[in-house]
Formats: sequence, structure tokens, C-alpha cells
Amino acid sequence: MSGKRRGGSGEVRGLMGREVQPVAHPRDELRPDHFHVVAVPVREPGPGEVLVRNTWTSVDPGLRVRLRATGPDGYFAAFPLRAAMDGIMTVGVVVASRADGFAPGDTVWHAAGWRDYAVVRANEPALGGLGTLTRLDTALAPAEWYLGPLGGMGLTAYAGLLAAAELRGGDVVWVSAAAGAVGSLAAQLAKLRGHRVIGSAGSAAKVAYLRDELGLDAAFDHRAAPVAASLRAAAPDGIDVYFDNVGGAHLEAALGALRRGGRVALCGAVSEYERASGAPGPRNLFQAIAQGLTLRGFRGSAHMDRMAEMQREVAGLIRDGRLRHRESIVEGLEQAPQALARVLAGATIGKTLVRIA
Amino acid sequence: MSGKRRGGSGEVRGLMGREVQPVAHPRDELRPDHFHVVAVPVREPGPGEVLVRNTWTSVDPGLRVRLRATGPDGYFAAFPLRAAMDGIMTVGVVVASRADGFAPGDTVWHAAGWRDYAVVRANEPALGGLGTLTRLDTALAPAEWYLGPLGGMGLTAYAGLLAAAELRGGDVVWVSAAAGAVGSLAAQLAKLRGHRVIGSAGSAAKVAYLRDELGLDAAFDHRAAPVAASLRAAAPDGIDVYFDNVGGAHLEAALGALRRGGRVALCGAVSEYERASGAPGPRNLFQAIAQGLTLRGFRGSAHMDRMAEMQREVAGLIRDGRLRHRESIVEGLEQAPQALARVLAGATIGKTLVRIA
Repeated sequence: MSGKRRGGSGEVRGLMGREVQPVAHPRDELRPDHFHVVAVPVREPGPGEVLVRNTWTSVDPGLRVRLRATGPDGYFAAFPLRAAMDGIMTVGVVVASRADGFAPGDTVWHAAGWRDYAVVRANEPALGGLGTLTRLDTALAPAEWYLGPLGGMGLTAYAGLLAAAELRGGDVVWVSAAAGAVGSLAAQLAKLRGHRVIGSAGSAAKVAYLRDELGLDAAFDHRAAPVAASLRAAAPDGIDVYFDNVGGAHLEAALGALRRGGRVALCGAVSEYERASGAPGPRNLFQAIAQGLTLRGFRGSAHMDRMAEMQREVAGLIRDGRLRHRESIVEGLEQAPQALARVLAGATIGKTLVRIA
Repeated sequence: MSGKRRGGSGEVRGLMGREVQPVAHPRDELRPDHFHVVAVPVREPGPGEVLVRNTWTSVDPGLRVRLRATGPDGYFAAFPLRAAMDGIMTVGVVVASRADGFAPGDTVWHAAGWRDYAVVRANEPALGGLGTLTRLDTALAPAEWYLGPLGGMGLTAYAGLLAAAELRGGDVVWVSAAAGAVGSLAAQLAKLRGHRVIGSAGSAAKVAYLRDELGLDAAFDHRAAPVAASLRAAAPDGIDVYFDNVGGAHLEAALGALRRGGRVALCGAVSEYERASGAPGPRNLFQAIAQGLTLRGFRGSAHMDRMAEMQREVAGLIRDGRLRHRESIVEGLEQAPQALARVLAGATIGKTLVRIA
């Protein structure tokens, strides 16, 4: 790479990179053929820009929400068809820099994922407040952790508990999709703060992971029995906080179990993402009035100001062996769509990552 | 009355009082024949109790929620059939007292409504935190105002705006059922704080009331056009706060119009009260995640600690002619069920009261 920095036409001479582009909006279940992988010439960075060779990119269930003609108001923008997907957190190595503070060899994160190379402007927040180009401390942790516990996943778990749910001493906490990237962190962070924590997930293997590896107080398989009944068995006296990654019947069960003054951190609604039309909300929202409940929607990216404190805490916990995280790693950029389909189908544990190179 | 305080059997000799009792649970629309009015002997007060002759009693849409075999968890208890209805705010005059601090002739409020006479224990909060027996200052305001702007209605409006919705400078506020007892106060309190306030109601006459008498910035008839379209016309740049008295399509419209960081005070859901089964919630609850919205359910009775400050503020505003309130007065206890049916049908403006005697 180092020998071919400049092409005469603004392209890095002869350098081609692959991009994953959506070519159709899934109506319900996402399939790999909703995407294609194209090779495009890589342009050279302009003033204030760096060229990054991406090494890891992120697969998040929330991407599904953006694979529509128009996304929800105020959410990350919908992905245009036949264009690179902007706003996906990614880690890479700087190969050329025309921005102060960045030099070739730096490991960085940015939000131009699902492609081999990205030209990224420094000092400019990406789409929806997502990660401005940032140098990562690879002495603290392997680069890919910054797409998981030390990045958006950690921040979402942390802000969801502390800011959205306003976690208080003694709260009984239920986390859904608790074997997922965010859920597994949220459940453990609550547990480490001394709470009784119930986790739910969609398979016996995941439930075993929650009980045996994460050490949650109770765990259940939401596919094995009605959610409300399983929740009642796990928390016969009710719950105070529900960290919602699922929506639908899960949220309805939570509203029925929350005690006076209870709080819901609305983080995601993966049960609804693959529905062709808007899913009806919980039938028992009146419980919010009856019990004085608060439901607060949030995105980790709205809490970037807490990233540093989260990273310090979580890195320390991982180092001390007190917090576990698991990764589902997929090899090769071209596997990203299949990986997303698997995440949406609930087939993965922990953070799903694509190793690009 | 004064000559016949004590009956030998614990009853006030010869004194009979009427009570309205539910005799059946309405399946959908409430009708007067779901109730009957019975005459019962009035017992004398025991130690720590007073006997009150009720003069005014309250008709609230939320009563409908309690006319079921089992009410929502954590809400005011369901009314048992063929028994007096406990937990309805009422004003009356003490006719006999065995409680310190209360003397015959005192005007009081308490929560044993929909009956001619009530024996009430002093210093004991009623059902669900509702009004402990309290002497009212009739020099400050007519007694019946304590069932409206100076009582639970005022407190619900006040706490809904300030505590549940956390009203902030510059917020654009939408209040539904804004011609109702709570809504008309909430809309005006927000307007008096300098906010742009949109009100909605269910008839042209009510809309005229909102515009011409309450001076709201915009008002619309939710029966005249789809709520979301009317709201968009009234608030093309969106809203920051929604004070929800209606639920259903109103709440869904609000979620579509709320700007980033917006808040919903979930106060009531009158559109759902007469449905036989639980109404599905909003289909666009994901907007809470996308826009970082907070939905907070509350009941005025959870904020009794703010009653005195609310009363001072609201009494001053009414005295100065800056806040208006309207009453729909029904004559005669036996008319209470019909009055409740009219409230639920949206046929009333302002606070609906029953004058008992």
C-alpha cells in the first residue's frame, strides 16, 4: 500500500476495495441476496481526511431498521440502495493521512463500515452522532473490542442502565436478549452493581450461558413458554427495571411485572425489525399510569460524553476477569449480510464481528 | 340532623342515606342501569371518625377503569358490586365528629363519594393515596372547586406537566382532551408559562372553547380528521411534550410528532376505557428509541406533597382572571351514573360534578 499513495485522478493508483451495498429492501426476513459486494476504486484522502484499511466491522441488529425505503424519524438514516453503507462502526488501520493527529499505522475507529477501505474526515461526527474518527489504544485492549464492550455496545449497556433506566440500589432488573452484544453487558453491569438480574434469551444454550458463564440470578428461554409466565416464575415479586432489546410480547410482559415507579430502558425491538408493517405496541400500556412507570427510549450514540468513563470501568472489569464477553466472528467482508441474517434470527451469542482482513 | 345524633344500635336514629352502587360491570359502553341507588341506614361515627353530609361528588373518566372484575395492577382498586364506591373525591359538611380537629359545620373533602352521607376516619389516607379527610378553606374558593382546579384535577395537571413531563422552557406542548377537567388546566398552566400550546378535543364547540376562551395557540377536533394530520398542521415543526388523556391513535400521533428528547405524560387513556379487551398500544413505539423519548405514567394522587403549592398558584390565577375553569353540574346523586356515561362519551366540558344537596 505504502508505495502507491497517489493516483493521478484522485484515486489511489490501482487500488480497488470491496463494498457491501444493499440492492433491495427486505420485506420481512433479510437474506444475503438483498446485498451485493462490489469492487470500487479507492480514492485518495483530501485535506483533513485519512485513508483507512478496515480490519473489523460491526454487525448490529439495529441495521435492519435502516434497510427500508425510509427509516423511523430521527433514527440513523436509511441506507440508500446501491451505495456503501454509512454509519456502521468499524475498526481499521490508517494507511494515508492528510489530517493532523493521524499517521499511517494508527489503529482507529470510524463509522464507514462494511467496506475494505474508507476515506474518513477527521474531527467530524458521523451520522447520528456515531464515532468521529478516533485513535484507539491497542495497549488497553485488542482493536475489535472497541466494536464491542469498549465501544457502542458497552456504551449502550452503560447508558441504558444508568441514564435511561436510572438504576437505583435494590432494583430487580430484567434484561432481554441477554446473550446478545448489549444485553450480556447490561446484565453483567447490573449484576456487578449488586442487583438481582434476570436474563432471557432464545435458546437453551443461551440460557445456559446466562446462568453458568454470566452468573445471572435467573434466566429463561423465551421460546420455551409464554414470556409473562416465565418472567413471573423468575421474579415472583415483580421487577423494577426492564432493559428492553426485544419489544413486542417481552415489553408487554415487563409492563405487567414492573412495580410502582419501575423503569424501562427502550434500547431495541428486535422482535419487530423483520415485520413488514408496524407491530402494535403493548396492550397494557395503562400499567404505566397505574404504577407510575417510566419508559425511556435511547441510543448509546446520544451518550458519547460517557464513553471514556465506560471504557475505563469496563476495561478494568474485563482485565480483572469480572466481566465476560463473547464474540461471534465471521471471516470475510462478503459474509457480513449472512452474519446480519444470523444475528436477526437469534443464532449468535455476544457481539458479532466481521474480520475483513 | 342535629337532634338525632345517636341511635341506640350505632345508627344515627332514623337517618337514611342513598348510595350509588354498581350492580354489573359494563362490557363496553357504560349505562346508568349498571348502577342502582339504594337507601341505607347511616351509622354514627366511632372514635376518630366524623360523619359528613356530602354536598358535591366527583365524576371522573378514570372511574370507568375500576368498573371491572379486576382493575389494572397497582391502580385504584376495582369497585365491588353492590357496595358503596370507595375512592371518589367528594366534598361535604361535617355533621358529627368524634375526631380531633373536626367540628360540625366544617367543610371537608374525603374519598367516600357517590353517597349522601359518609363516615370517614380522620388522619388516614384513603385508597390509593387519595385525600385524607381535610378541612377546606371556603374563604379561598367555593367548596366544589376543591373537586376541580384546587383538588385532584389541578394536581394532576400540575404534576403531569412539571413532574411527569418535566416541562422546560421553549417546549411546544400538545394536550389532548383539552376541554376536559384535567386537560383544560394543563393546557392553561403550560400557556401561562409561556409555551406554545396545542389542544385537541372531540367537537367543534370544544375547539371553539379552546381557542376563544382558553386562548390556546392552536386547537383541533380529533373527530374531524385523522389526529396525526391535524397535529401536523397545528405543529408543523413537531412537539416536545404530549400530555396524554386519550391514548390510542392520539398517542401514536404524538410519537410521530415528538422531537428529540420529547416527553409524554401518560395521564389517561379515555379512548380505551370502554373497550371490552386491551387495546393494542402504538405501532410506532420505536420512535421512542429513535428520538430518545420518555413516556412517564403518573397519577395526581402520587403527588399529594405538591397539593399546597398547586392550590396557591391555581387559586391566585383564578382570582386574577388568568385561568378559567368550567363545570358541568348535574343535580342529584341519582344522576351520577348518567353523568359518568356523558363524560366517557365526550359530551361534557370541564369538570363534571354532582350536586348532592
